[in-house]
Amino acid sequence: MYRPEIKVLDCTIRDGGLINNHDFDPTLVRAVYKAISESGVDYMEIGYKNSRELFSAKEYGPWKFCDDEDILKITKGIESHTKLSVMVDVGRVEIDDVKPASESPVDMIRVASYVKDIDKAIFMVNHFAEKGYETTINVMAISRDQGPELDEALQQIESESKVQAVYIVDSFGALYQEPVEWLVKKFKEILKTREVGFHGHNHQQLAFGNTIEAIMHGANYLDATIYGIGRAAGNCPLELLIGFLKNPKFDIRPILDLISKEFVPLREKIEWGYIIPYAIAGMMNEHPRAAMALRNSEHKENYREFYESLVDTDAD
Amino acid sequence: MYRPEIKVLDCTIRDGGLINNHDFDPTLVRAVYKAISESGVDYMEIGYKNSRELFSAKEYGPWKFCDDEDILKITKGIESHTKLSVMVDVGRVEIDDVKPASESPVDMIRVASYVKDIDKAIFMVNHFAEKGYETTINVMAISRDQGPELDEALQQIESESKVQAVYIVDSFGALYQEPVEWLVKKFKEILKTREVGFHGHNHQQLAFGNTIEAIMHGANYLDATIYGIGRAAGNCPLELLIGFLKNPKFDIRPILDLISKEFVPLREKIEWGYIIPYAIAGMMNEHPRAAMALRNSEHKENYREFYESLVDTDAD
Repeated sequence: MYRPEIKVLDCTIRDGGLINNHDFDPTLVRAVYKAISESGVDYMEIGYKNSRELFSAKEYGPWKFCDDEDILKITKGIESHTKLSVMVDVGRVEIDDVKPASESPVDMIRVASYVKDIDKAIFMVNHFAEKGYETTINVMAISRDQGPELDEALQQIESESKVQAVYIVDSFGALYQEPVEWLVKKFKEILKTREVGFHGHNHQQLAFGNTIEAIMHGANYLDATIYGIGRAAGNCPLELLIGFLKNPKFDIRPILDLISKEFVPLREKIEWGYIIPYAIAGMMNEHPRAAMALRNSEHKENYREFYESLVDTDAD
Repeated sequence: MYRPEIKVLDCTIRDGGLINNHDFDPTLVRAVYKAISESGVDYMEIGYKNSRELFSAKEYGPWKFCDDEDILKITKGIESHTKLSVMVDVGRVEIDDVKPASESPVDMIRVASYVKDIDKAIFMVNHFAEKGYETTINVMAISRDQGPELDEALQQIESESKVQAVYIVDSFGALYQEPVEWLVKKFKEILKTREVGFHGHNHQQLAFGNTIEAIMHGANYLDATIYGIGRAAGNCPLELLIGFLKNPKFDIRPILDLISKEFVPLREKIEWGYIIPYAIAGMMNEHPRAAMALRNSEHKENYREFYESLVDTDAD
């Protein structure tokens, strides 16, 4: 599958940071940046740009805030053609604190937004675009928002925003291939002058398969993480995506090295991957919040009770 | 996805037995049979029917041979509508030792065959069908055999055999969705009077996604295993498949109980699942044999060297 327009974005540190309060050791972040650069991946997302007024530096590591000086310590001395991205959530960033792109190591800012917040997201991407950044809007929790409000949001993005790509984000790991096909076709039909992206979650082991499905129907911006690390079940594994794409610009070997040296041991310390409560949450089209709480409790293997609690919730 | 023609076959003990020389404790096999029965799954495959002349009972457990008396100890006293299946490999069974179906606890015999052995497979299924068994032919390693020899084999099956279903078996975990679609359409086109089945392997986390793809294009016989257990990366997880099918006859809860009580602890003792050398073998369309040998060596995490050894092999 070789299509030159395809851009791969590694969000290992950003989505993986949702497991460990964004507190990755800078040595590991540098190793990731080096491997991603050597492997020829287009973008690396290093974390969130959150307001220090809203979140405490005592509770969260540096990749919750992504100060330029912290980023520069990571990139210093490493040869790279990989662009750097940060994510912002609607309502959690002081946009006036963001310097112009020409003064920052960051190339792209991605705005994560629910459908209901799309007006704010458009305001934000336009602000960042005027400051010289590449921008995307990542439409979260889309498995719950597929009605006419989605069409309207996409029409607004197309007519009012300067954004370059709009992502379908399967936050709950609930999508099967048919809804992915339906969504990519809808996005492409309405967003005639933008690229479409896909960000999968692996609750039902479908993050990679759904990413392939999105590619087949024309999505060109693809998110993945090393060894699939990410919140709850994690994301589309970068190594599988590179293996599938077969684009000669990619080299899988630096990623393989980093998995064996860093990510296999890391998986022994923090949990992600195929874990039954996350699979159940995905089947039920639920946020993994309750499953994550279960995994931090002494009832972590009590799958039947968890399943029945979600069935009861749905009957409310 | 509710289609009454769909039949789900659990092959936990049969494919899982490829990891532990078919030596599951009878208590576990009974627990699996009970849970599968309670969950309403159509078939359970309990092992291989191999010749005791070819394989030693010292090296292999009972599910390598599937003697009727061993099976009857498993099923005794458990209420069930689940049919029992055994698998045979071409050239590894004494067909004259197989009793008529009316005298056996086994309902179905599945013949695993490479395309090149299809004449023998047809002879065998016809023999077993005459003895009163349901039968399938499982076409192995199909990612390597997609040329005109496959068409010819399917035409022979359609015109010469009494088989009820023919499986696409992705032995190497190498198929992506597009080849699955292509294969299911081909099978359905040639095998006009038979059902089509799909048996995935999970080397690239695609066993479930590919099973969905097969369903969408008309496959009605679907293999899966509890918690995805099976050779190398394992198979399509039964719990995910039941969650997708939404057929009211299925109950996922007995499977969830068995995973938490038995299969999570078992996974600590024997290895299957998403493991990088298996993923690499899948990408390369290679038998997982070399990857399995690597995992049993002291170089088990040396992914780059393994990758490069396969690249070199392919250049022969």
